[in-house]
Amino acid sequence: MIVDLRSDTVTVPDEAMRRAMIEAPVGDDVYGEDPSVNELQQEAARLLGFEAGLFMPSGTMTNQVAIAVHTRRGEEVIVPEGAHVYEWELGMMATFSGVVPRFVHAPLGVPDPADLRAAIRRSIHQSPTGLISLENTHNKAGGTVLPLDVIAGAREVATSEGLPLHLDGARVMNAAAALNVPVSDITRHFDSVSLCLSKGLGAPVGSVLVGSKKFVGQAHRYRKMMGGGMRQAGVLAAAGLVALRDGPKRLGEDHRRARALASSLVNAGYAVDLASVQTNMVYATVPDAARRASEWAERGVKANALSENSVRFVLHHQITDEMLARAIEVVTAPVPA
Amino acid sequence: MIVDLRSDTVTVPDEAMRRAMIEAPVGDDVYGEDPSVNELQQEAARLLGFEAGLFMPSGTMTNQVAIAVHTRRGEEVIVPEGAHVYEWELGMMATFSGVVPRFVHAPLGVPDPADLRAAIRRSIHQSPTGLISLENTHNKAGGTVLPLDVIAGAREVATSEGLPLHLDGARVMNAAAALNVPVSDITRHFDSVSLCLSKGLGAPVGSVLVGSKKFVGQAHRYRKMMGGGMRQAGVLAAAGLVALRDGPKRLGEDHRRARALASSLVNAGYAVDLASVQTNMVYATVPDAARRASEWAERGVKANALSENSVRFVLHHQITDEMLARAIEVVTAPVPA
Amino acid sequence: MIVDLRSDTVTVPDEAMRRAMIEAPVGDDVYGEDPSVNELQQEAARLLGFEAGLFMPSGTMTNQVAIAVHTRRGEEVIVPEGAHVYEWELGMMATFSGVVPRFVHAPLGVPDPADLRAAIRRSIHQSPTGLISLENTHNKAGGTVLPLDVIAGAREVATSEGLPLHLDGARVMNAAAALNVPVSDITRHFDSVSLCLSKGLGAPVGSVLVGSKKFVGQAHRYRKMMGGGMRQAGVLAAAGLVALRDGPKRLGEDHRRARALASSLVNAGYAVDLASVQTNMVYATVPDAARRASEWAERGVKANALSENSVRFVLHHQITDEMLARAIEVVTAPVPA
Amino acid sequence: MIVDLRSDTVTVPDEAMRRAMIEAPVGDDVYGEDPSVNELQQEAARLLGFEAGLFMPSGTMTNQVAIAVHTRRGEEVIVPEGAHVYEWELGMMATFSGVVPRFVHAPLGVPDPADLRAAIRRSIHQSPTGLISLENTHNKAGGTVLPLDVIAGAREVATSEGLPLHLDGARVMNAAAALNVPVSDITRHFDSVSLCLSKGLGAPVGSVLVGSKKFVGQAHRYRKMMGGGMRQAGVLAAAGLVALRDGPKRLGEDHRRARALASSLVNAGYAVDLASVQTNMVYATVPDAARRASEWAERGVKANALSENSVRFVLHHQITDEMLARAIEVVTAPVPA
Repeated sequence: MIVDLRSDTVTVPDEAMRRAMIEAPVGDDVYGEDPSVNELQQEAARLLGFEAGLFMPSGTMTNQVAIAVHTRRGEEVIVPEGAHVYEWELGMMATFSGVVPRFVHAPLGVPDPADLRAAIRRSIHQSPTGLISLENTHNKAGGTVLPLDVIAGAREVATSEGLPLHLDGARVMNAAAALNVPVSDITRHFDSVSLCLSKGLGAPVGSVLVGSKKFVGQAHRYRKMMGGGMRQAGVLAAAGLVALRDGPKRLGEDHRRARALASSLVNAGYAVDLASVQTNMVYATVPDAARRASEWAERGVKANALSENSVRFVLHHQITDEMLARAIEVVTAPVPA
Repeated sequence: MIVDLRSDTVTVPDEAMRRAMIEAPVGDDVYGEDPSVNELQQEAARLLGFEAGLFMPSGTMTNQVAIAVHTRRGEEVIVPEGAHVYEWELGMMATFSGVVPRFVHAPLGVPDPADLRAAIRRSIHQSPTGLISLENTHNKAGGTVLPLDVIAGAREVATSEGLPLHLDGARVMNAAAALNVPVSDITRHFDSVSLCLSKGLGAPVGSVLVGSKKFVGQAHRYRKMMGGGMRQAGVLAAAGLVALRDGPKRLGEDHRRARALASSLVNAGYAVDLASVQTNMVYATVPDAARRASEWAERGVKANALSENSVRFVLHHQITDEMLARAIEVVTAPVPA
Repeated sequence: MIVDLRSDTVTVPDEAMRRAMIEAPVGDDVYGEDPSVNELQQEAARLLGFEAGLFMPSGTMTNQVAIAVHTRRGEEVIVPEGAHVYEWELGMMATFSGVVPRFVHAPLGVPDPADLRAAIRRSIHQSPTGLISLENTHNKAGGTVLPLDVIAGAREVATSEGLPLHLDGARVMNAAAALNVPVSDITRHFDSVSLCLSKGLGAPVGSVLVGSKKFVGQAHRYRKMMGGGMRQAGVLAAAGLVALRDGPKRLGEDHRRARALASSLVNAGYAVDLASVQTNMVYATVPDAARRASEWAERGVKANALSENSVRFVLHHQITDEMLARAIEVVTAPVPA
Repeated sequence: MIVDLRSDTVTVPDEAMRRAMIEAPVGDDVYGEDPSVNELQQEAARLLGFEAGLFMPSGTMTNQVAIAVHTRRGEEVIVPEGAHVYEWELGMMATFSGVVPRFVHAPLGVPDPADLRAAIRRSIHQSPTGLISLENTHNKAGGTVLPLDVIAGAREVATSEGLPLHLDGARVMNAAAALNVPVSDITRHFDSVSLCLSKGLGAPVGSVLVGSKKFVGQAHRYRKMMGGGMRQAGVLAAAGLVALRDGPKRLGEDHRRARALASSLVNAGYAVDLASVQTNMVYATVPDAARRASEWAERGVKANALSENSVRFVLHHQITDEMLARAIEVVTAPVPA
């Protein structure tokens, strides 16, 4: 038995999803004629509370296109510390959009709206602020959830300062599940949201960027520039539709299993910040992390060693209770002398 | 009966291709673990005569990643007039790579190697030349083929000047079919080649960039920056493998039908530069092009009006002889008074 | 006697100009407190018919800042063939602004307004047009002058299409002298104009960019980004003011001498397109240009060999009739066997 | 009496410096023919211990050109928190070079070399590190000095990791004066150094970038791209030479006066981190800073209110002991009720 807890991106499409792909009506999406893509875009926009959506091959592209639409070259983008758009998107904000990050302290991934306001630049000797971009759930902080009042506070700052507000909502469905609210209660406060279909929701490929019609019209050009214009993308969109419809229901189970894993790790003597275990991720302090991860992998349990003494486990819908039990067994086994 | 001659990108995956997609072994390609993607990349590299390949969602991305690897900011890229990397890739060479095009006269898409050499900048008061990028077949010139001796001449210029040589080979399989040579007789002269699976070859989505192992290693980073890192991309790669294996055989038929259409157009009084009808495209001079194209579309025959008096027809494997006959009937019908 | 005809940039400040520099009131221009800079900016704006001006160290910077203000990344800038902003500004439009040039045929540097209009892109599959940028006088075409009706036509195209219109007016004072009109008759048709003080006008360093107050406010930020914020720049501005006040009067003499040189060259058997000799430049066809230029230099006459068989001579206010006579004597001497 | 303590950039050229400007031999530096520029470049290079130097109009340009030479797009530049290249250079590292900053904790502007090493990225999922850039003295930290062993440690990290090491040495002469060592003891550990002539050294305009001949050759192209190619720049370089020769001797006096001012402020009840008063700057905590600064300005003493409760004072050679006494009198006067 292989238990792959490296990421929720490792799921493979199941039979139903593959069937949807094989039966999807498709067309040339570069001409806007793929019915499956169009349906996915509309459904995602509706679900998140926006006018329009745009399908792209990855979350990096949806985020970076959003940054490009919202900013002009030489501006600053206010982000929480550890933001994915900076840490894992390889400088694309600089290379493509010509903008730099301005970091705000964010314990558990949550910035204080007052700090967002204080981070805005107004001097003619400095880069002007072009955008505030939040992340929910915040990956590097442990899959943590933005409280609704923080979002409301950020919205207030953005509105009063005349700045756009973007959400890297790669895992915003996990946030909605954790808060037990409709996802639009979270997303409607933003000017644009990117949502990944290929993480917890289980699609093989794809993300959707939503916003106003005008915003999506501009996003279309940047998507094409980045090479995200795909032809019969409906084969992917069809899987994405299944993910969007069926995926969210299962997230509560992933979260329950994450908590169970975290408890077991703590009981076995590993340090885990339980306050950060809010959704489907568990970050544990593990001495000699790379070696331990490799030992576990030999016994069929895969996890990501992120640094010398840190390991990340991510739950997803292809991890059953039986597999979780096996993972706990392997990971909490006594360390060989 | 709908006869869609707007582009060879409009084909939809057939039963066999969809079956391959549903049965494809997949994994997380961001971790390099998708067997179908790996197989496609290796097979494309082998076919074109290179060490390695990299799968991406579009031809724009394969070309622009190649430009990024080969150049440094502020350099010039020598291209034939009308090159796709400039005309249809929306300034990405400037925005991402910070480079400008330097055009070389290219009748029927074919530059003179002496002009390539003359276009190289050497003054410290000018942008240095960073790359020569050719296109085969040349889309805007009519799907025209680069003669092998021109390629050899370009190679000689590149080598003697110490410049890399890239091929936008979106339709290089059409060139190989037209010349009746193995495609590697064309591609092996280049340092990198991009090949589209979703044009004449019939896959729904995807292109492959091939080069040396070192080149592909660098391309990997730029692909990720542009958002081209896809997860279980094997569902697309599986279709791509079918396209790569089965697609080339059918191209000769497309070319034969293009010639037939061109002849019929000439006989009906339209101006067609027959010298440019070398593969699967026909550009015809059609007065009041947009209106005529719209009239034809009402009768089920679609073509692209490219300017006020120019229409492009593209043949592909989902156009049968019967459909071609219908297209000819509609297009050559007397213009209503 | 050294006769330096390589460029009108080679002049050295004379006594009066140096005295102005030594006596100039100065302040820290990064704080906007340099009185000499402020005076120069206002005087240049007034002369050219604009609200505001901004002093910068070079014409490359004034042009590239203007392009940055007028465009967004990924757009096209329509320029005449051979435009300085492309040929001699080292890809800065791509690297900094992320835009590409779109060339328009321009015999003697003069584009047809109808061609400017035809060059505008409107398809969502192409880079949108962001700016039209003309050049007057056109350096590479021979220092040629834009006719006023062509400027009016370009203005009409820009206005009706909602595009900004920039003038690379590095030598627009030469154009005004050639047309014998106030320079504002030329410049007032544009949204922004860059003017060089260090070419025909004779200042050691500096250019001014003029436009509306809003435009100059935005230009200020890009100037700072490029490193053009200088401290006590008044020492340069003071020289610039002398150049701006005294320089224009002398240009007619430069033009007269250029025509005399051109005639002598023709009489001596060199091919010169006399239609292009409209201001202070003469381009002559000279076989084995580099060798000839080097022979002349040994005899004290310097000119620029631009290609294998082309030499450029530029007149300026530090070339007297006596020096011109010497240059003609040397250059028209029989070629040694 | 006006006492301007806003910055050491506000000095105006004195009689000797102006005389040097008026008498300077000049030429067209775009052709490399300005003797004063060449002399300044050589002298700065020699002084700092490098092969070659390049004169530019500002410190922003020297730093940003260095970043461009050392990096490729999409890389990270490791910098201490508060680095000038990020805080005050308006995103140019992103817009021009396409790179992002990676911050290292730096109390009093001094990073731990172990943290520099830990900040280097090696994963293929992240931006590779392209450069380490330090700052000495560190402006935002209070004009603080890098200890020599920290520099040696940074050099060791850079060498062992194969990374270039740049110094933003705008005020490195102040560091040398504070440490009482030849400046080359500091600068020779770096691959490139930028030095400002228009700060404490007293020139009106200009900075010099030094490095190997190869480095400076590449820097030349980027300088031209940014518009830093100036014609008879010798008029500025001559003043720069005076500054370079005479300026360093006076810095000890500026430092002594800064300490005196800091003591007086502390005695008057203002919070000043005396550990940070190492060179010519004093940062004091001043409630209601903007209003106080404006009251002082009415009485002839100018300082920069940097935030709601922070004021910066900068000493320079045009502040005499008498002026300092006046500044202390005004600033420490009881706050009006």
